[in-house]
Amino acid sequence: MTDRSHAEALDAADPLAPFRDRFVVADPDVVYADGNSLGRLPVQTAERLDLLVQDWGDRIVSGWPDWIELPVRVGDLIGRVIGADPGETLACDSTTVNLYKLASAALDRRPGPIVIHEHDFPTDRYVLEGLAAARGLELRRIAEPTAEAMPDDAALVVLSHVSYRSGVLADLPAITEAAHDRGALVLWDLSHSAGAVPVELTQSGVDLAVGCTYKYLNAGPGAPAFLYVRRELQDELRSPIQGWFGQRDQFAMGPSYEPAEGIERFLAGTPPILGLTAVEVGAELTLEAGVGRLAEKSAALTELTIALYDDRLEPLGFTLETPRDPARRGAHVSIGHDDGWQVCRALIERADVIPDFRPPDSIRLGFAPLYSRFVDVWSAVDRLAGLVESGEYREVDAAGARVT
Amino acid sequence: MTDRSHAEALDAADPLAPFRDRFVVADPDVVYADGNSLGRLPVQTAERLDLLVQDWGDRIVSGWPDWIELPVRVGDLIGRVIGADPGETLACDSTTVNLYKLASAALDRRPGPIVIHEHDFPTDRYVLEGLAAARGLELRRIAEPTAEAMPDDAALVVLSHVSYRSGVLADLPAITEAAHDRGALVLWDLSHSAGAVPVELTQSGVDLAVGCTYKYLNAGPGAPAFLYVRRELQDELRSPIQGWFGQRDQFAMGPSYEPAEGIERFLAGTPPILGLTAVEVGAELTLEAGVGRLAEKSAALTELTIALYDDRLEPLGFTLETPRDPARRGAHVSIGHDDGWQVCRALIERADVIPDFRPPDSIRLGFAPLYSRFVDVWSAVDRLAGLVESGEYREVDAAGARVT
Repeated sequence: MTDRSHAEALDAADPLAPFRDRFVVADPDVVYADGNSLGRLPVQTAERLDLLVQDWGDRIVSGWPDWIELPVRVGDLIGRVIGADPGETLACDSTTVNLYKLASAALDRRPGPIVIHEHDFPTDRYVLEGLAAARGLELRRIAEPTAEAMPDDAALVVLSHVSYRSGVLADLPAITEAAHDRGALVLWDLSHSAGAVPVELTQSGVDLAVGCTYKYLNAGPGAPAFLYVRRELQDELRSPIQGWFGQRDQFAMGPSYEPAEGIERFLAGTPPILGLTAVEVGAELTLEAGVGRLAEKSAALTELTIALYDDRLEPLGFTLETPRDPARRGAHVSIGHDDGWQVCRALIERADVIPDFRPPDSIRLGFAPLYSRFVDVWSAVDRLAGLVESGEYREVDAAGARVT
Repeated sequence: MTDRSHAEALDAADPLAPFRDRFVVADPDVVYADGNSLGRLPVQTAERLDLLVQDWGDRIVSGWPDWIELPVRVGDLIGRVIGADPGETLACDSTTVNLYKLASAALDRRPGPIVIHEHDFPTDRYVLEGLAAARGLELRRIAEPTAEAMPDDAALVVLSHVSYRSGVLADLPAITEAAHDRGALVLWDLSHSAGAVPVELTQSGVDLAVGCTYKYLNAGPGAPAFLYVRRELQDELRSPIQGWFGQRDQFAMGPSYEPAEGIERFLAGTPPILGLTAVEVGAELTLEAGVGRLAEKSAALTELTIALYDDRLEPLGFTLETPRDPARRGAHVSIGHDDGWQVCRALIERADVIPDFRPPDSIRLGFAPLYSRFVDVWSAVDRLAGLVESGEYREVDAAGARVT
């Protein structure tokens, strides 16, 4: 199982293997293990952006009747990735702004204690910290995102489906049910799960969700994010940012704000058409591959990562921070090392492996299932082990900016 | 002055005439009179976007150390267009979201009555309506944006520099001073003035500003917007949307939100790199042409529009909704007609002139100074007069969506 030949056999049997050719691979010697941070460029994205730019040049303002549909049309594509019904998802704004809009709307409907995970992604914690302070609400930080941790009096629970640090996959259906039983609304951040693990929002009765498209959906740096609002809740909630794109009969430009019916009330300003075009390509590719097949391959990639960790890395002083149970993890594996930052820099500079790093000492290995090969996993671990076995990683200057 | 030869002579003497070749003009028979809604595509934008997309493909996540600077770098370019000092402007989010962030921050600092213009652009009115309702603050709608209309007790004044409907140019320095004298902060929306008329924010002591880049800055449909915060105010204000890009020492990912020093505290989520690349090209072109020359040409283009209106359109029952004094108008001219919507449709469908329309009956003629010719003005008015003189416009179906 830990031989390179085993990885090669897995690649040979991989039904998604042909999708690698749908992405730009500029340097085949580089092993890309950071698809959980920024996905690769789909070949088709460059073509589609060229067409969009040409359309802008040709039609100028006359293109808007087509472009204006993108937030809903692309939103519905993403909705199919996350198990939402049509009309429940929008592609718009950033994850941060969408999180703010939906959490604020939920707290308007029912003010009360807010539950977050103490180790959740920074923007999630910071946004909720701000909303709680502005409204004088209690912010309760739980140590683990579990059904048992749901308090009786929460008004809103905000959790990530997959932890950006540990890769732990929260039990979304069970937590959602437990929170509902106690009267809370639930908002899930799907940034690290959309396109990598199965998500069934409508079936699980999820109220609200947000997520980003530049990771497993491969929509490019800072691409527009998405938001989801369960249909039954849409009429009860209002965005705090009353923008003209959320206005009913927008182009009547009437004197007062009246929210549009349905999901469009959660739009704010003019939609970013360049960015949405890239999101559309990324979502289409994901649907073409199939979320089920992507999830199966994610499980197999992380299984191989952990098997190789056991064989090569554990003896070198690494620790495994991601669950061994495939049902409890997402698509990336985090490993700790006392010299984590220096090892990470050495991987990039000396070994042509691109992982990423999260403080204080975690190296994340994120092999996105749409374009990663099993031999990529093998090579990454082999090169990583070699750097540490030889001590070569200590030669690397570990100063420098941490911006990814 | 109303002969075509006069327009041709103005073009021959126009120092900005060569800039037309820097833009894509797909069909030279079409007269584009809607640069105040969506600017044309700069030739260079397609090339720069190709390079950015290639960079994403080549470097993937390793590109971020360069890309992450875009909101500030492009913001500073826009700052030079609007008379702001370096470090006072960011390119980010949409105009709507930026307006929300800055108005909310101002009202946190000093709650109190909010002044808006009753005919301001819808998103401005709606956002402030929402903020006022959420905080129980009075929203006062003034009939004209003048220094005299500033009340004694306002906390925040939010006005557009150039009216999207009438093209009226507000007296920014005088209104800012009058509001300051009464203790209010002032937030200007520069969407219809940035790149078209002179703006001197720092010199005028303006506190806050927002604006869009897809009009006279030619950054493309739904391109990222900008925000400005006077340096002395930056430390006193906090964004209501506490995102990770506004966090001090962002990649330490610490437990609590602490706003960054300076303008970056007003960032929220991950910046949209594709969109910002197009904004950068648009801002560079504007600076290359020079704001002063652009403003002079805007004044001359609108002067010719009004002269031709007097000669050809006034006798046909049109009304002029834009001031005759060039010091009191922006770069577009609005004309009313009882059958305005039908005339507007006829212009597009029968006469290859693209203006836009604002309810109830205004046709806006916006000749952006960077690429418009004086003969464009002449042709647009000539074709418009012809449609109405002949009655041909009545043959056009005036149903259909109003989405621009």
